[in-house]
Amino acid sequence: MKERFVIIGGDAAGMSAASKARRENPDLQIIVLEKSSWVSYGACGLPYYIKGDIKNIEDLVAITPEKFRKERNIDLRLHHEVMKINPDNKSVIVKKNDGEIEIPYNKLLISTGARAVKPDIEGIDLDGVFTLRDMESGQRIKEYLEKNSPESALIVGGGYIGMEMAEAFHVYGINSHIVELFPHVLNSFGPEIAEVVENHIQDYTTLHLGKYVNAIRKGSHRKLSVQLKDKKVDDYEEYPLTDMVLVAAGIAPEVSLAREAGIKLGQTGAIATDEYGQTSIADIYAAGDCAEVKHTVTGKPSYIPLALTANRNGRAIGSTIAGKTTKLASITGTAIVKVFQLEVATTGIVDTEIAEKNGFNPIKITIDSHSRAGYCPKSKPIKISLTADRESKQLLGASMVGEEGVVKRIDIIATALSGEFTVEQLEKIDLAYAPPFSPVWDPVLTAARVLNSKLD
Amino acid sequence: MKERFVIIGGDAAGMSAASKARRENPDLQIIVLEKSSWVSYGACGLPYYIKGDIKNIEDLVAITPEKFRKERNIDLRLHHEVMKINPDNKSVIVKKNDGEIEIPYNKLLISTGARAVKPDIEGIDLDGVFTLRDMESGQRIKEYLEKNSPESALIVGGGYIGMEMAEAFHVYGINSHIVELFPHVLNSFGPEIAEVVENHIQDYTTLHLGKYVNAIRKGSHRKLSVQLKDKKVDDYEEYPLTDMVLVAAGIAPEVSLAREAGIKLGQTGAIATDEYGQTSIADIYAAGDCAEVKHTVTGKPSYIPLALTANRNGRAIGSTIAGKTTKLASITGTAIVKVFQLEVATTGIVDTEIAEKNGFNPIKITIDSHSRAGYCPKSKPIKISLTADRESKQLLGASMVGEEGVVKRIDIIATALSGEFTVEQLEKIDLAYAPPFSPVWDPVLTAARVLNSKLD
Repeated sequence: MKERFVIIGGDAAGMSAASKARRENPDLQIIVLEKSSWVSYGACGLPYYIKGDIKNIEDLVAITPEKFRKERNIDLRLHHEVMKINPDNKSVIVKKNDGEIEIPYNKLLISTGARAVKPDIEGIDLDGVFTLRDMESGQRIKEYLEKNSPESALIVGGGYIGMEMAEAFHVYGINSHIVELFPHVLNSFGPEIAEVVENHIQDYTTLHLGKYVNAIRKGSHRKLSVQLKDKKVDDYEEYPLTDMVLVAAGIAPEVSLAREAGIKLGQTGAIATDEYGQTSIADIYAAGDCAEVKHTVTGKPSYIPLALTANRNGRAIGSTIAGKTTKLASITGTAIVKVFQLEVATTGIVDTEIAEKNGFNPIKITIDSHSRAGYCPKSKPIKISLTADRESKQLLGASMVGEEGVVKRIDIIATALSGEFTVEQLEKIDLAYAPPFSPVWDPVLTAARVLNSKLD
Repeated sequence: MKERFVIIGGDAAGMSAASKARRENPDLQIIVLEKSSWVSYGACGLPYYIKGDIKNIEDLVAITPEKFRKERNIDLRLHHEVMKINPDNKSVIVKKNDGEIEIPYNKLLISTGARAVKPDIEGIDLDGVFTLRDMESGQRIKEYLEKNSPESALIVGGGYIGMEMAEAFHVYGINSHIVELFPHVLNSFGPEIAEVVENHIQDYTTLHLGKYVNAIRKGSHRKLSVQLKDKKVDDYEEYPLTDMVLVAAGIAPEVSLAREAGIKLGQTGAIATDEYGQTSIADIYAAGDCAEVKHTVTGKPSYIPLALTANRNGRAIGSTIAGKTTKLASITGTAIVKVFQLEVATTGIVDTEIAEKNGFNPIKITIDSHSRAGYCPKSKPIKISLTADRESKQLLGASMVGEEGVVKRIDIIATALSGEFTVEQLEKIDLAYAPPFSPVWDPVLTAARVLNSKLD
């Protein structure tokens, strides 16, 4: 009998593993079990689909099921929901339209992804309350916007999705509110960077920082009444009315199948794996938004679910299972988000408190520079926070914000973190200069110089 | 008596050295001798001044002479031309308006820069023939354009300046021709990248590749008649008529003072220095466009005159002379140029022939990708060439071209070269992804993957 590789979940990690395994091993039997009707889609594009930049939701699909089946010889089964993993039998129990079946595996990949966090608050399931995570949820929001032409929306959470959706709502002429429990939006980016974002988005949305939603109730005029409370002020209450609520309060790894099978979860709550992606149970692997990954800077298992990691580590596991043993890549947690006219990005560990918790003796500086040569009329301000360890003088992380040139510069830091650069090494990189693209001293070099001068 | 630091040439390297030395040592006497009336200017901005993006030439001046004198206590002397260096006396002979004087030094920095190459051809000094290098030459071209409203211009040289000036001429409605001796414009970027540029600029200018200017003569109708010959075809001759000629055939280090003083020049023809910028004669340093710098990839002295190197190494020498010994940075030769709608960039060693000459066993690949997620309507093609050494699997260099996102990506490679990354390390960097900025697999990662697969 052929060796059989079974994959639970047909998105980034799962389909990357399937495709790579097929390329490396034409003889492997590869079965992908996907509970929805979508595979291999770019969930990160959903806010842009809702906004209208991307016309058809099908455009978000990188590779169609047909193509996986015909061209890559992958046995892709939609509407197949895995109910249970049975490690003793090396099989999975699968629910499909006409009942349950048991499918044996030789190797198994859990790529069940993550789900949107739904806080346990009154009214979370009312009509008009949405989350955004998968294709169906994107379609539901888009349909609601087009059918109901809401005038107002309240966004719970000032993270990536909250920021991107505020922009999408703005395009619909919707008056939006963002409620964020932390003192700042994009909290992990650091206050210096977040404040620039907050000033910028005030023109487009109303911010409620340090507040949380206590309840959502049916209000007057077919609106929802949202009870806001302040994290610090006991008697604070506010009841904004809104046509809709988008809960964008983060995501949590989808680990119930793994947990029930006795697979070890890490401290982050995601599935723990070894450096090849194998879980605590032999022949069962995990990758993507359900799994931990080693952090480049701390060296510790971390949970930073991002698309590239899912694709890359899915691919590595596919390769290993096909016979070509491949280690997973560690991650620096590089992320970028467009917030109206701003580019905002982070990588590594910028926050000094988090750095301390990880055993570093951090120092952080923030500088103001500009995106192009100072004499260029189109030059825009750019702000960079840079964090290093005082003892090793190693770079730990950076955050940045500006109207242009941020996307250019965050990857310099990501690369430097990958190479375990000291701040002095960062200061000495020979970066590209031409007046339309950068000052002679690139803002990254200026930041490195300022930080390095404090390390002497 | 106070220690005296004398600097020959008041542009990037010289003024960076002066400023840094002052900051580190308030007691040092610092004299800068500049033969022109300009210091500390961004020569790279001249094409944009001529084009009209920058309104006043004074805007290119980063710091005024007044500010250097008053705020930084630097004895800056304009219209002071050094005629001779006398290492035995530790002095320089200086010509000024009212005669010659001798100025002793304890430490000397030669930052005489480079001059535009003027090929030895008939008619090179005719009216209407220009070079572009310093502020005066920029002013001359701009004045000529505004006074004479030329209809046509012939550019000798398809390098950075040639490309940028073709764009400036286009803004004036000038019909331009570019003559390039090599088979391609931007020759060091490699043919795959250059061909994209050539296709793009055909809409704006006429290219004469593999040809050279044999003579420039006065033609009919007050025009210049330019005799073109083909490098390979003996009997080829062409005589385009043009209102003006811009000679942009590269630059050469200004080393006559150094040579006459007995200072050693390197094989490149520029001034050789040690790792602190000191020349073959004690207490005499050299930095900027007149000096060699160690190449990060080859480890050998090289001549790649760029603004950042001049600023950075001038600064390092200023620091050393002020008492804080600082090594020069090596360079990867990162360069970027805007060519009409294109961004074109290179770093390290891309050309396999040059790599071979430097003892590598090179392999080069070229890939096509795009600047954003495939489903983003604004995504643009991007082409990357990547070169590595087969034995060490180390990255050697890259070139790129595209309408957007090139400036973002070249610095990833520059950083990786600085960290002596293998291709596998490059493939594993955690780069930023969001649909408006990049595909999930950034083009750099795709290029690394393709190259790495050939190294197995």
